[in-house]
Amino acid sequence: MAPRNLFYAQSGGVTAVINATAAAVIETARRHPEAIGKVLAGRNGILGALREELYEASALADGDLAALAHTPGGAFGSCRYKLGEPGSDPRYQRLLEVFRAHDIGYFLYNGGNDSADTCLKVARLARECGWPLVAVHIPKTVDNDLPATDCCPGFGSVAKYVAVSTREAAFDVASMAETSTRVFILEVMGRHAGWIAAATGLAAAEPGDAPHLILFPEVPFDEARFLARVEAVVGERGYCVVVAAEGTSRGDGSPLVASARVDAFGHRQLGGVAPTLAALVEARLNLKVHWAVADYLQRSARHLASATDLELAQAVGRAAVEYALAGHGGVMVAVERLADRPYRWSLGAVPLEEVANRERKLPAEFIAADGFGITAAARAYLAPLVAGEAPPPYRDGLPDYRRLSPPLAERRLAPWRDA
Amino acid sequence: MAPRNLFYAQSGGVTAVINATAAAVIETARRHPEAIGKVLAGRNGILGALREELYEASALADGDLAALAHTPGGAFGSCRYKLGEPGSDPRYQRLLEVFRAHDIGYFLYNGGNDSADTCLKVARLARECGWPLVAVHIPKTVDNDLPATDCCPGFGSVAKYVAVSTREAAFDVASMAETSTRVFILEVMGRHAGWIAAATGLAAAEPGDAPHLILFPEVPFDEARFLARVEAVVGERGYCVVVAAEGTSRGDGSPLVASARVDAFGHRQLGGVAPTLAALVEARLNLKVHWAVADYLQRSARHLASATDLELAQAVGRAAVEYALAGHGGVMVAVERLADRPYRWSLGAVPLEEVANRERKLPAEFIAADGFGITAAARAYLAPLVAGEAPPPYRDGLPDYRRLSPPLAERRLAPWRDA
Repeated sequence: MAPRNLFYAQSGGVTAVINATAAAVIETARRHPEAIGKVLAGRNGILGALREELYEASALADGDLAALAHTPGGAFGSCRYKLGEPGSDPRYQRLLEVFRAHDIGYFLYNGGNDSADTCLKVARLARECGWPLVAVHIPKTVDNDLPATDCCPGFGSVAKYVAVSTREAAFDVASMAETSTRVFILEVMGRHAGWIAAATGLAAAEPGDAPHLILFPEVPFDEARFLARVEAVVGERGYCVVVAAEGTSRGDGSPLVASARVDAFGHRQLGGVAPTLAALVEARLNLKVHWAVADYLQRSARHLASATDLELAQAVGRAAVEYALAGHGGVMVAVERLADRPYRWSLGAVPLEEVANRERKLPAEFIAADGFGITAAARAYLAPLVAGEAPPPYRDGLPDYRRLSPPLAERRLAPWRDA
Repeated sequence: MAPRNLFYAQSGGVTAVINATAAAVIETARRHPEAIGKVLAGRNGILGALREELYEASALADGDLAALAHTPGGAFGSCRYKLGEPGSDPRYQRLLEVFRAHDIGYFLYNGGNDSADTCLKVARLARECGWPLVAVHIPKTVDNDLPATDCCPGFGSVAKYVAVSTREAAFDVASMAETSTRVFILEVMGRHAGWIAAATGLAAAEPGDAPHLILFPEVPFDEARFLARVEAVVGERGYCVVVAAEGTSRGDGSPLVASARVDAFGHRQLGGVAPTLAALVEARLNLKVHWAVADYLQRSARHLASATDLELAQAVGRAAVEYALAGHGGVMVAVERLADRPYRWSLGAVPLEEVANRERKLPAEFIAADGFGITAAARAYLAPLVAGEAPPPYRDGLPDYRRLSPPLAERRLAPWRDA
């Protein structure tokens, strides 16, 4: 059989290590010229396929590929762009047209729940239309909320970042508390699932260490209990470090703070939980408060990537190409945990039906009985994911990240009119 | 002459490397048993002297001393605690009583402008009272606003942190801009001086790179010009990265956001500039905005310390002990720059009168003509200060920071009633 081309796209929020996955896909594909022609990467994700804007990623020089592997963000661009149903949404047909025009026989989609759903729909449609396509989903999300995999590449690095940041800030606050800040509040990502917030629990080396309270989206916020606990911790230790997930919400499900803006998927854009809690603590407890919102800093912090996470990100990329070569489509590459310490894992394939649009929240057994901390089980789960350092190369004191500009494949179709 | 004891105290906001200074002071002092007896460190800074709570820092085991050198925050505690005038404030007499009771002949005070002033007053008082005391100020401040020194230990590390964070977040925003966030705003420290904000300018490797706008406390905020520039950058590049100093203020000097709370020195506690600007951009330009507030994360980020900064922090500690031994008091250890690239420097002593209570703002020639960026001169000044990496040791994926508990020296005076 003649070699066929491979289409790779990044989807949704980017991570510190998603480009390491991309580099692994490209490298592995290049080692199989008998089966894979070009690796074409969608410019701005799936939009690149619709618009026929396809980077010739396999043409990258070796040096660029090495730089790609340690550069955060999404090198080819990503997008938040929701497709409808294949029966009613003409964009699916357009995708197939582009795949046909560029002889794409492999579709590797690197994203979260939403893109797993898209990957599944594209795979089904191709089958119905008789277009031979192997579609493999590669997990990626800092939220760690995909089911059927031990963890999601991208999560270990953000986990490491928030744990390190919490530990460092706690040392700062502890040294100044008597005459300055008593309460420090760090807001971390996590709309619906508290995985990132939970990871800050690793900052505590001993009982009583910061963070003293973690607010999870899974636990309804109770103002009186929160204030009582903050006051008690300050009384006991002189200061209190609070971590709050951006999705911290009240018992009725309403977020503490909500903006009117929604993203392409109808997700409400949150933010501002930390200043809201800070104002509450100042007003009610009359304590000096500082707060930080890490926002994109946490998910782009390649300088503090977890070596374990990086290794997983590369491994899922390689495995996806191998599944594609074996004709094993309609699946997501999944991580199976074999042992906690040292962490041992293997990769497998799970049907996309088991992944698409499902969200894995923090299990109850990971949340301490009082709702404000993590359990030993959670620590055992989280600890190996932040293990190991993998610093990028530095140049003049700053990480030597690189912007790539591979050529775009020549167009073969008429321009697409965005539907 | 019999050996006399050395009192060391940390003052004001802590940094990622102030403990490296402390470790250098202790190590250097221990090498001079002929002149220096114990190193006594004030618990929570100068408060420890007033309360006669003096850690026997010279008793620290070698392993603890090594850990001290790479642990952020202030290991002995610091404080924001303003003394009045020696003539009217009885606390100065108390300080001298404690110094006498513990035969303290050397006073090393590690802080910023306020503590330089205190150091000077204590030195004068001791002389007036006939108590032989060599008082040396050791510079430390992330704000980099002390005069008469090339830079302040602590600044290089926060500069590196904000530059790296800006670069990383920019890669994230660039990859998602078409369908997601168009404008990213990072708030950094700097009430009156824009040194930290300026350092983010190092994130730009090429013209047009982020940060696209920097808002300095030294440049009055003009809403219309700001919005016009943000809109233009988004139009040209698809996204815009803004850095705002917390002290960004309007032409009349009023901050963009102010809380009612003031610290012990009457400084207004600021914060919230980023969300304020974000709301402005959303409302007026209808662009999706994300924002981050680094707060204490930036000044405690020992994991990303600048090797140059660390070296300076250690060097000023050593030099302070050497000046003390030479009887050279009433001075601050200052860094003199000999060359930019590679950075060469030497240490000298400047009279405290030239330092106390003076603030060095960003010079006009470091700010771009349009007020939104830094000049080549600023880059030449800043670049060497962030050079080199000095990661702490890691354990189980997190920096192995240590809390120390050296013994407290036995009390020799009646308890002090806080005035």
